[in-house]
Amino acid sequence: MARSAVAAKVAADMKSASFIREMFERGRRMKAQRGDDHVFDFSLGNPNGVPPEQFFAAVRAVAAERQPGLHRYMPNAGFDECRAAVASFLSREYRLPIDAKSVVMTSGAAGGCNAVLRAVCDPGDEVILLAPYFPEYRFYTEQANARPVVVQTNDAFQPDLEAIAAAITPRTRAVLINTPNNPSGAVFDAAACRGLAELLSRHDRPDQPVYLVCDDPYRRIIYDLDWCPTPVHHYPRSIIVSSYSKDLSIAGERAGYIALPPALPERDVVLGALTMLNRTLGFVNMSAFMQRVIARCADALCDVEFYRGNRDLLCKALLEYGYELIVPRGALYAFPRTPIPDDVDFIDRLANHGILAVPGLGFGRPGYMRLSFCVDRGTIERSLPAFRAAIGEVRSR
Amino acid sequence: MARSAVAAKVAADMKSASFIREMFERGRRMKAQRGDDHVFDFSLGNPNGVPPEQFFAAVRAVAAERQPGLHRYMPNAGFDECRAAVASFLSREYRLPIDAKSVVMTSGAAGGCNAVLRAVCDPGDEVILLAPYFPEYRFYTEQANARPVVVQTNDAFQPDLEAIAAAITPRTRAVLINTPNNPSGAVFDAAACRGLAELLSRHDRPDQPVYLVCDDPYRRIIYDLDWCPTPVHHYPRSIIVSSYSKDLSIAGERAGYIALPPALPERDVVLGALTMLNRTLGFVNMSAFMQRVIARCADALCDVEFYRGNRDLLCKALLEYGYELIVPRGALYAFPRTPIPDDVDFIDRLANHGILAVPGLGFGRPGYMRLSFCVDRGTIERSLPAFRAAIGEVRSR
Repeated sequence: MARSAVAAKVAADMKSASFIREMFERGRRMKAQRGDDHVFDFSLGNPNGVPPEQFFAAVRAVAAERQPGLHRYMPNAGFDECRAAVASFLSREYRLPIDAKSVVMTSGAAGGCNAVLRAVCDPGDEVILLAPYFPEYRFYTEQANARPVVVQTNDAFQPDLEAIAAAITPRTRAVLINTPNNPSGAVFDAAACRGLAELLSRHDRPDQPVYLVCDDPYRRIIYDLDWCPTPVHHYPRSIIVSSYSKDLSIAGERAGYIALPPALPERDVVLGALTMLNRTLGFVNMSAFMQRVIARCADALCDVEFYRGNRDLLCKALLEYGYELIVPRGALYAFPRTPIPDDVDFIDRLANHGILAVPGLGFGRPGYMRLSFCVDRGTIERSLPAFRAAIGEVRSR
Repeated sequence: MARSAVAAKVAADMKSASFIREMFERGRRMKAQRGDDHVFDFSLGNPNGVPPEQFFAAVRAVAAERQPGLHRYMPNAGFDECRAAVASFLSREYRLPIDAKSVVMTSGAAGGCNAVLRAVCDPGDEVILLAPYFPEYRFYTEQANARPVVVQTNDAFQPDLEAIAAAITPRTRAVLINTPNNPSGAVFDAAACRGLAELLSRHDRPDQPVYLVCDDPYRRIIYDLDWCPTPVHHYPRSIIVSSYSKDLSIAGERAGYIALPPALPERDVVLGALTMLNRTLGFVNMSAFMQRVIARCADALCDVEFYRGNRDLLCKALLEYGYELIVPRGALYAFPRTPIPDDVDFIDRLANHGILAVPGLGFGRPGYMRLSFCVDRGTIERSLPAFRAAIGEVRSR
């Protein structure tokens, strides 16, 4: 029998990912037929803000330096000056004393998540994901030879502590959370963060340490809030993974990091493992040039008001048209319930009106859909009649 | 029983890597005691050439562009202009028509190797490595849930075709080669390349396709040769993995790529798998900024004459002192036999004379040692009496 050109698992993953590709292809065909102005693409999660001026200034300054030695390998965790700048920023942002040697620069938060799960998971371990979840978490978990265990959040997309407690088994090695959340836009509230920390503290034992991995790249993209709650202060065995992809609108630069809070048990062992894995997994280190840039603008932030305006415009209209929606308090996505239970069917109907969206099914939460509002303001404005028509169509049946 | 803070395999890997860290620490102590000028560090593989002027010019030009949209995500395989520039360069360098869509930009060759092995290996597959080999290949192979099978090269570090044929089993999925070679500096000669291609052609069957993965980052760092032979032309199921780390002396920028030759069977399936894995493994894409830089200097090359001068100075002296050495025809390393069979013991003696080197044991070839000559010329000059003294010491016993 002929053997596939690629691994069986990879072939299966490619097949399951093919519907996104089909949607992408459909979008391309639609744009060719209708013209770009009549296709409203809410399917992508590519932050479209403008990087802040500090970023461009830092890029120019580093480019002007002409330092032949600073494009070479550095220690795998990164340049000292970059780690120090990030640590200083994080200490303020999280209100925790995070030191430079507890920061590992990574290829975005995606690279950081992969290194963390690889570092802590033995084959067969379980990683709890809270649905709706970022679909890539499944890959990250499986690539670490661990098994994803999905627990639904409640109707407000807040952690369901009882359901999480019920899902913990002797093989549970980590709980991976993401707040502000992709795709729901939910910000886990302070009570939920404390409750989660208390729950895990009851289960964390010397013979079964359970890590809380906080994937926090949207932490500063928040609306109507001054501070994003976090369980990190309340649970010592927490690991922060994040990036500058959203803060600076530079997702393509792969500027991320892992930070270990001061109270993490066996911090040096974990740090050693992460540093080694950053190398052996093939990342080796975050781009030297971008590290030098980040060292100069580690506090900078894109214009969050731009996203807030998009959120307000889209969400107000959706609510007015009758969509059921928890207004997002963070991140770049609205996650309304689809007016009919079959989200894939409704996505199809939206497409007939020129709107591209992603079904909740792909995030482990069918019956919903993700709308990225990191798009041009004009796209939202022009799309509104189509959103109204689509819900009208199913309501009038 | 208390469970380790990290995965068992990771803890074991950290332990086995600890002797390199100990050597590094020893070097630091030595420098503190003797002063920097009296410690000769030949242990690192960090290309220390100066990036060519085209690279710096490209960095300045891209920095001056101020294109907010070009720091965002792009297709995971990379910007079209970057892939096209690399494809055009490769078509000339390999004398093969490689098109832009057959190139995937990666986080260095390390990121490329990980993606390739992940793409093709099912759990339990075997990957043949030719010793002496780059030690990270073991990690890359094991992370793809495959098993490294080590085959020794001959005394001239050329592939031993009979030994490779004997090592092929029904589970063999790939042969991973590296010419010019780290650590031996050997360039596989044309006959060996053709022989390897013929051997694999006999074994490659529909029910057992065998990939030849060519990790070629030193391809243009050659001495006394105009062209580095390659089996790629003679074996269709070849995959090229490489980087600009050595060509431009920018190893810290993680500028690498995978290129699929035109004759590769099921090329689109392999390309789809590599593109997906580039994303799911957490690389996502090569740094956007550096892609735009590479697009402008994909042909540039550092000053190879600088390395040739280092090679000549070091190798001439070693031969004169009585070291047994195949003079390297490529890469940045000399790999002499240690004058006593116990390479770790001899490395220890060298250290007493202020010289840091890596035992052949770490590369799967005990009885040898790796000396990186990507160091300052002065380091080589000042180290020579120490090399002479060390061999004299063991000869006079």
